[in-house]
Amino acid sequence: MRPFDVLIASHGPLAAALVDAAAMICGATPRVTAIGLAPDDSPETFLERVERAIDARRPTLILTDLYGGTPHNVLCTLARRRADQVHLIAGTNLGLVIEAVTSGDEPLDDALVERLTTLAREAVVDVSTRLAAR
Amino acid sequence: MRPFDVLIASHGPLAAALVDAAAMICGATPRVTAIGLAPDDSPETFLERVERAIDARRPTLILTDLYGGTPHNVLCTLARRRADQVHLIAGTNLGLVIEAVTSGDEPLDDALVERLTTLAREAVVDVSTRLAAR
Repeated sequence: MRPFDVLIASHGPLAAALVDAAAMICGATPRVTAIGLAPDDSPETFLERVERAIDARRPTLILTDLYGGTPHNVLCTLARRRADQVHLIAGTNLGLVIEAVTSGDEPLDDALVERLTTLAREAVVDVSTRLAAR
Repeated sequence: MRPFDVLIASHGPLAAALVDAAAMICGATPRVTAIGLAPDDSPETFLERVERAIDARRPTLILTDLYGGTPHNVLCTLARRRADQVHLIAGTNLGLVIEAVTSGDEPLDDALVERLTTLAREAVVDVSTRLAAR
């Protein structure tokens, strides 16, 4: 079992859609929570919902949709408070979600976070230039 | 007006959620189409839906959720067929969608695609290491 939880936070339904898409590819996604900022959320109400959604005793990898957005900023507050147990990567794409969800029994440490960050960047591929080069 | 259309293709509701999230941040998103692979789609039925959804006369930037996934592979077929007018970037995140949608009057060319690809990669940020360094 993955030794950490995954929390995906986004504007609107994006976090839930990332989990749905990952599930279409790699099946059930246990211990993954999606939480989306609703149009009528304040940062405070959103933080309250996040705190209710997570298990504060478990190491948690937080993935946010956009550096500097409200979901990201709220989750940064939480990451600072629990820096010993929480890691945060911004700018998530589906490749990152799949890698995080299927990371097996690797512990949540700096090495894993660095590997996931690199994989997420490498998942962005300019395919048209490759096609043109053929 | 942006001189090209944007088509986002994904597994399930992810493409639509990316557009919804972008709209929460930067308002209306004209000439942006989201299309999601349904569980009962075949590659053929998905391609038919894509072809009905796009305006074949317009330059189009295609963003896919995952390199090598079915939506991506189907859209690659289309990109090869219309390589003069279509560019494709895989592994999209919300930052990429926002940059593409708000790219103003820049034409869809290799320079724009390269810039967007770089921005999408730079949008992936390992925030926990930054927090720990403080």
